[in-house]
Amino acid sequence: MTTDIWLNETLYPNWGQRFLVKRELARERSDYQDIVIFESFSHGRVMVLDGIIQITEADEFVYQEMLAHVPLLAHGAAANVLIIGAGDGGVLRRVLLHGSVRRAVMVEIDGEVIRLAKQFLPAIAGDAWNDPRAEVIVGDGIDYVKRAPNASFDAIIVDSTDPIGVGEVLFTDEFYQNCARILTERGLVVNQCGVPAMQADELHDTSIRRRKFFPHVTAYVAAVPTYVGGFMTLGWAGKDASQTMIPVELIRARARAAGILGETKYWSPEIHAGAFHLPPYIAQHLPG
Amino acid sequence: MTTDIWLNETLYPNWGQRFLVKRELARERSDYQDIVIFESFSHGRVMVLDGIIQITEADEFVYQEMLAHVPLLAHGAAANVLIIGAGDGGVLRRVLLHGSVRRAVMVEIDGEVIRLAKQFLPAIAGDAWNDPRAEVIVGDGIDYVKRAPNASFDAIIVDSTDPIGVGEVLFTDEFYQNCARILTERGLVVNQCGVPAMQADELHDTSIRRRKFFPHVTAYVAAVPTYVGGFMTLGWAGKDASQTMIPVELIRARARAAGILGETKYWSPEIHAGAFHLPPYIAQHLPG
Repeated sequence: MTTDIWLNETLYPNWGQRFLVKRELARERSDYQDIVIFESFSHGRVMVLDGIIQITEADEFVYQEMLAHVPLLAHGAAANVLIIGAGDGGVLRRVLLHGSVRRAVMVEIDGEVIRLAKQFLPAIAGDAWNDPRAEVIVGDGIDYVKRAPNASFDAIIVDSTDPIGVGEVLFTDEFYQNCARILTERGLVVNQCGVPAMQADELHDTSIRRRKFFPHVTAYVAAVPTYVGGFMTLGWAGKDASQTMIPVELIRARARAAGILGETKYWSPEIHAGAFHLPPYIAQHLPG
Repeated sequence: MTTDIWLNETLYPNWGQRFLVKRELARERSDYQDIVIFESFSHGRVMVLDGIIQITEADEFVYQEMLAHVPLLAHGAAANVLIIGAGDGGVLRRVLLHGSVRRAVMVEIDGEVIRLAKQFLPAIAGDAWNDPRAEVIVGDGIDYVKRAPNASFDAIIVDSTDPIGVGEVLFTDEFYQNCARILTERGLVVNQCGVPAMQADELHDTSIRRRKFFPHVTAYVAAVPTYVGGFMTLGWAGKDASQTMIPVELIRARARAAGILGETKYWSPEIHAGAFHLPPYIAQHLPG
């Protein structure tokens, strides 16, 4: 006989995923949220915030690669990048792989997420924390974009929780207005917009907000195993519509120059280009 | 207070999805498997075979569209189609949408699956059961392909359970050898190959078998919400390598001629073409 302990994700009231727990590694209440890190039998180590799976060692590459490489290669020459959230450091690590990046500012509101990720999930960020181009700030992303100078970033990557709880304030008019202001001429912002099969309103509602301040608003998809429910959407708001229609061969050339070609497990030039072609059931949620 | 009843999927020992059950509709033991149909709060009605989710009303379109439309439009003129499994009738319905199809033979081993699907999931097959081009056989698909005449089908669609339990015999050398024999000159066979993030061996092992009898073996992907774990793969074995590299505009023209353009919720010409570009973490499981 064994004693089985299961963690049931509580994202949805009527449906969920569950993990057999090998060992609990950390459990604490930060100033912002409930944080649990455990060792699973199926997905390596897993971080859970307020009952919602945030990252697993086994599949983190899908989300992180698509959230970092797609905007940076679509821009083509992003030197200054702002990351909001992403306390595990995985997006920061991918951003810093790009040779074009001279400065990557990461603003995470919950210092405990960073501390626990460094202790229990060290492979996810690797050496990114010590890169001289990285500036890691424990603080409020909303406040940061409010104070940042005009035209000071080429890309903004918002790796937030869903627009409930801690992440809610990252989906407001004021936030997107400031994003538009602090972005350079060809600047863009991406952010996670949930899984349309389960959370269709999230893509729709936040897209409407983004469109008030950006001429080009769309989304792209990624099939993240532990963000269950088929494709998740990553929202896109930019000033240059051509960025989401770059031919595969140009994407490949940029990836080669950036040093990431052949270094990825989910992203590829074809996956990149294809991700902007939304299945009809998702496309219908974008404001017309 | 409410009394909550949860159904926990038992596909994997260490990880799973769970559904809050609104009402149990059917539960029986057929000659082949344990069959449960229930009403969920999240996904409409759900059919479960031997503890594994097979189909839900909410997301069946993803799997069925990709399993039917991709091979038929890639072939371009499929007149005779063989469907093995798929007792709910959803693949049969999609196959019959294609004007080119003159005969669709469906061979399902478990008559109880058909009977219960007709009773509790009638919308999935719609009127397909009564289409004069449809020939529905309750019988053994292995045996059917063994006896079928040479060059009698243009496409074979295998909608089986995983290669364990009832579905196991559909993944043998003998089965694929017979498929090759009964297919016409440009014929092809597709079959579900599991979710590589969780079941990587399934794609690898069955691809090796298919390659013994077909010159062109590959796979394509679909993000099916309730086949959880990111992309699932659909195995492809054909005699004409050009079928998996058809330009988007030709796919669109064929879909328009077939009468399915604009009638789908997941499939689109771009999704079709993009589905053959596998993420590196999946492509590595194909035999080199």
